[in-house]
Amino acid sequence: MKTLLIIGIGAGNPDFITIQAIKALNRSDVVFLMDKGPSKDSLIDLRRELCQRYLTERPYRFVEAQTPERQRGDVDYQASVQALNQDKQQVFERLINEELAEGQTGAFLAWGDPSLYDSTLRILQQILASGAAQFEYQVIPGITSVQALAAQHKVALNRIGRSVEITTGRRLAAGQAGDADSRVVMLDAEDSYRQLRNQDLDIYWGAYLGTADEILIAGRLDEVADDIQRVRRQAREAHGWIMDTYLLRKPEP
Amino acid sequence: MKTLLIIGIGAGNPDFITIQAIKALNRSDVVFLMDKGPSKDSLIDLRRELCQRYLTERPYRFVEAQTPERQRGDVDYQASVQALNQDKQQVFERLINEELAEGQTGAFLAWGDPSLYDSTLRILQQILASGAAQFEYQVIPGITSVQALAAQHKVALNRIGRSVEITTGRRLAAGQAGDADSRVVMLDAEDSYRQLRNQDLDIYWGAYLGTADEILIAGRLDEVADDIQRVRRQAREAHGWIMDTYLLRKPEP
Repeated sequence: MKTLLIIGIGAGNPDFITIQAIKALNRSDVVFLMDKGPSKDSLIDLRRELCQRYLTERPYRFVEAQTPERQRGDVDYQASVQALNQDKQQVFERLINEELAEGQTGAFLAWGDPSLYDSTLRILQQILASGAAQFEYQVIPGITSVQALAAQHKVALNRIGRSVEITTGRRLAAGQAGDADSRVVMLDAEDSYRQLRNQDLDIYWGAYLGTADEILIAGRLDEVADDIQRVRRQAREAHGWIMDTYLLRKPEP
Repeated sequence: MKTLLIIGIGAGNPDFITIQAIKALNRSDVVFLMDKGPSKDSLIDLRRELCQRYLTERPYRFVEAQTPERQRGDVDYQASVQALNQDKQQVFERLINEELAEGQTGAFLAWGDPSLYDSTLRILQQILASGAAQFEYQVIPGITSVQALAAQHKVALNRIGRSVEITTGRRLAAGQAGDADSRVVMLDAEDSYRQLRNQDLDIYWGAYLGTADEILIAGRLDEVADDIQRVRRQAREAHGWIMDTYLLRKPEP
């Protein structure tokens, strides 16, 4: 039997890695690096760095593969993600069938936590269900950008006895976010927070969380929305990409 | 100046600790252990074990303190939590003022992540605001029981492009949970999931997550609700306490 480990490596800070993840790395014969294009080389670099620093107990090899891109523009989001995941599934199938021998263990390194807005787990389960490859697998949690955001701003995600909703920029923009007391928004490519101005909200925003490039802005949304938009655009131009997240809620009474 | 570190130690599994948390422990002169009574001694034991295993680079001392208990029964929940936090605030003030010298660093070890349903951060900020003690502080995130639940059940917390709400058993029972596609319930002392039967939901339930006593049950809520209630009651009697959490959502189409 082959074994796959889906290892959450945390979001950005190499020190976010857990002892459980380090132990899992040290059971791995092959580490799969999914390449998302040159602008995200620094994300691959972090994975290499973590392996070089912590995968010290046995020989291993890296296997790199190009990750297919999601079709953008005027397409149905859900359908484009499903199409992307089908393309990814073929790539993952090939990696498992051709790059991993029986009895070996392969590691997929997930940014943040494999259980939150990450497709690796879903894709591997679809491969298992399709019968295209056989393997056992385990999931190792990791620190998410949501947790890094809260820690760096020194705020709790929830207020006493209240709820937190984690949602997407797309849902927020479409008015499909719920009315939880605290709302955390991920995957927002369109500055959707701007649509919630004039609602008496605080925002805690962070980009490149946990990395040396981290940027934090907090304040009344109405007062800082323009700042965030400007800083965000400049940072995306400078880096070629941006990963950011934010927490919205009413100010403390 | 004094420095306080609010360190998330993860939920249950000692291997959930991050390198960042280990480095933070190794900056600490004093580790505060908040004692929640004999039934929860195993929670204190984990904290001692983590320090003994990882706080190896300098001398340190433990300071234990009794944590006040929340008034239960027929009282307003929000008010009882606020009263509890005021009592805790006095305990924390005394610890900071009497047990930590200028220039020293003290660590509070938070179960899971200090940003999710944990009062330490809020209490320390109230102390700062009141002027009763002066200190700098940092927050170090940790793996929550929510993440342990998802990893152990091998499920994602969210579905593609959908939201996740993290809420309390109390809100679920009161019909105050939102309508997010996935709902995670914490702090449920009253088997509130039973009220959501006949709504075509799956449940992924876990208790003592990450520990040797971990219990997992998953399935259609209507089919496993009685099992969970029975197992939960037996486990709480055997251990004297229980910490559990669960994920609810509609089955995959």
